[in-house]
Amino acid sequence: MLLFERSEYLARVTRVKKAMAEKGIDVLLIASPANQFWLTGYDGWSFYTPQMVVVNSTEEEPLWIGRKMDSVGAKFTAFLAERNVLPYPDNYVGSSELHPIQFVAEELQRRGWDRGRVGVETDDYYYTAKWDAILRHGLPNCEFVDAFLLVNRCRMVKSDRELDYMRQAGRIAAAAQQAAFDKAQPGVRQCDVMAELYRVTTAGLPEFGGTFPCKPPNAMVGEYCAAPHLSWTDAPLEKEDLFYIEMGGVRHRYHSPLSRCIYLGKPTERMDFVAKVIAEGLNAVLEKVRPGVLCEELAAAWKAVISRYGIEKDSRIGYPVGIGFPPTWGELTASLRAGDKTVMEKNMTFHCIPAIWMEKYGLVISESFAVTDKGAECFADFPRVLLSKA
Amino acid sequence: MLLFERSEYLARVTRVKKAMAEKGIDVLLIASPANQFWLTGYDGWSFYTPQMVVVNSTEEEPLWIGRKMDSVGAKFTAFLAERNVLPYPDNYVGSSELHPIQFVAEELQRRGWDRGRVGVETDDYYYTAKWDAILRHGLPNCEFVDAFLLVNRCRMVKSDRELDYMRQAGRIAAAAQQAAFDKAQPGVRQCDVMAELYRVTTAGLPEFGGTFPCKPPNAMVGEYCAAPHLSWTDAPLEKEDLFYIEMGGVRHRYHSPLSRCIYLGKPTERMDFVAKVIAEGLNAVLEKVRPGVLCEELAAAWKAVISRYGIEKDSRIGYPVGIGFPPTWGELTASLRAGDKTVMEKNMTFHCIPAIWMEKYGLVISESFAVTDKGAECFADFPRVLLSKA
Repeated sequence: MLLFERSEYLARVTRVKKAMAEKGIDVLLIASPANQFWLTGYDGWSFYTPQMVVVNSTEEEPLWIGRKMDSVGAKFTAFLAERNVLPYPDNYVGSSELHPIQFVAEELQRRGWDRGRVGVETDDYYYTAKWDAILRHGLPNCEFVDAFLLVNRCRMVKSDRELDYMRQAGRIAAAAQQAAFDKAQPGVRQCDVMAELYRVTTAGLPEFGGTFPCKPPNAMVGEYCAAPHLSWTDAPLEKEDLFYIEMGGVRHRYHSPLSRCIYLGKPTERMDFVAKVIAEGLNAVLEKVRPGVLCEELAAAWKAVISRYGIEKDSRIGYPVGIGFPPTWGELTASLRAGDKTVMEKNMTFHCIPAIWMEKYGLVISESFAVTDKGAECFADFPRVLLSKA
Repeated sequence: MLLFERSEYLARVTRVKKAMAEKGIDVLLIASPANQFWLTGYDGWSFYTPQMVVVNSTEEEPLWIGRKMDSVGAKFTAFLAERNVLPYPDNYVGSSELHPIQFVAEELQRRGWDRGRVGVETDDYYYTAKWDAILRHGLPNCEFVDAFLLVNRCRMVKSDRELDYMRQAGRIAAAAQQAAFDKAQPGVRQCDVMAELYRVTTAGLPEFGGTFPCKPPNAMVGEYCAAPHLSWTDAPLEKEDLFYIEMGGVRHRYHSPLSRCIYLGKPTERMDFVAKVIAEGLNAVLEKVRPGVLCEELAAAWKAVISRYGIEKDSRIGYPVGIGFPPTWGELTASLRAGDKTVMEKNMTFHCIPAIWMEKYGLVISESFAVTDKGAECFADFPRVLLSKA
């Protein structure tokens, strides 16, 4: 099943070719599974063996090159004509003699695409040093150009249907946070709360289903709340425990993250104070959102609020969000922080996550939103407070 | 909380140093999050920003280098002394001017570790071409040596406690497959079946909790069953639907995969036949398992069975399994297939997944097991059949 019309995929290809032309790139080799998904629709958990999507500036469709058994999945999920789905045999998998990227280089040679300027995503998670060495060796007549984030940047402005998926993901996220809140109480194991959350993100809502996230929730309890990216345990919750939950709702690989904290008791004055500062700062950021505003201006709006209360934060407060493949749902193209001059455009999407990390714990209230002419459109509808139950 | 005693971590470091010595490596730079976890205990979902573990052959403990906010998590989860946890500031994150790997290179210089032979995991998912270029530029006096899979190979033989975690993971896997089977019936959405499965893998059992998997189940219904690595949808199940489920139980990042198919009806003769051949072939493989046996001998045992029934399969039937970080729970060191001379040793662990892919669908029955003196010890206890319900 194609998630988008062929015309939408072709418009994406056109957008990428334009960016290629600006850098003088003739052939673009895409390693990022998120970029492959966006550009072709291909959607399988097969990227643990090498696979690439190739865009030639003179061809209408990209080329998908992957493991033979996964070419079947390409026929179901990618908009590509069958001739543009190229399988390599299974003896290339996990072999010390053969490497799938050799196959890619040889295929480019066969097609006479081994000339001119080749763009590669030098710092993408899946573009290893070995791939790069094999390609440079196998394509000696090519000039290699860094195209890291070239496609990511093309992904930033979403189509209407992409926004619909992110809205649905936001509704799932809110339902999952609610389920976690409902389940959390002293005596219940942390993992049982997270099981409820996963049940909802996977099942989704009656109107549309959920799916798997590209990363687990960062969900910590007690002293672990001092560290942003740890995980829950199977210990039972206790009175006065703080449960930090950063998670995402997902619809067709589109993620809408949403973060809240749950306190099992009456929050201390300090907690209550910090949570209110976060909410006020977040609201100030959201009110600032408009096409034309710079990322650093959002960071400044945040800083103006927290400085007034004597609070500091030295890490960024957000990033563009959308399609997620492991290890992240971030688009990697910009940061909401001082010095980032990225201009917000209509239908770009961000996750603003202004967590405050103190010595013993962290607190967070986050929202994912689209940039619209009227301001920020948040994907979830959930109270911007430190949740608590006695 | 440390999952293992300090002495066990130090024994792992010793094992790695021995492998380094065999390749004449003075300093090993580890990019793989699974290898970092195994060697230090560090366990956070923070590897979407660069982090490395460094083993110097002359130092007792490795060094962890990562983002400042994640150094807190290192103090909770890694066995390392505080002085061996090195944070880089947040302005290195997602920056076009600064790269965290520059920080790594500079730190090695500061310590005088920028001489001799440096091992790098050239084809690890997280060791990008860019990292490699920065390191080579920043460490001009080092000789670079490929150390891909060096640590992975050290991980193959498990300790008693590691095996305990995999046994627990196997029990969770069986419970989750049972929950999926119980939930599946015509009219129920695919995503609601998977929600039950996720509920169980996350909650675990009353005696011990579950957690998140490093990859989602490959779970397909209907025509999608022809492709090995696709995903479920939110369509309702129908009579005569086949549900293919490859999933893993998880305990502390240790995965025990288990795969089964569910047929909603009376299986066709062909399905029934193929499923029985798979079970017979799998049993033949498991009966062959002993220390000293070669991986290719297991593949041969499988092939002897299926050839007798006129069935062919051109892809490998399994691989070593254990710690999982995205995108895989495979250890990447060996394959159960013809030509693989890897010698099975006691307490190595494998996932044997002899799926048969036909034109319209695939069938699978898989088991994860440890190599013991008495043969294969399977981690899950679940019927080796094509499950069906009318």
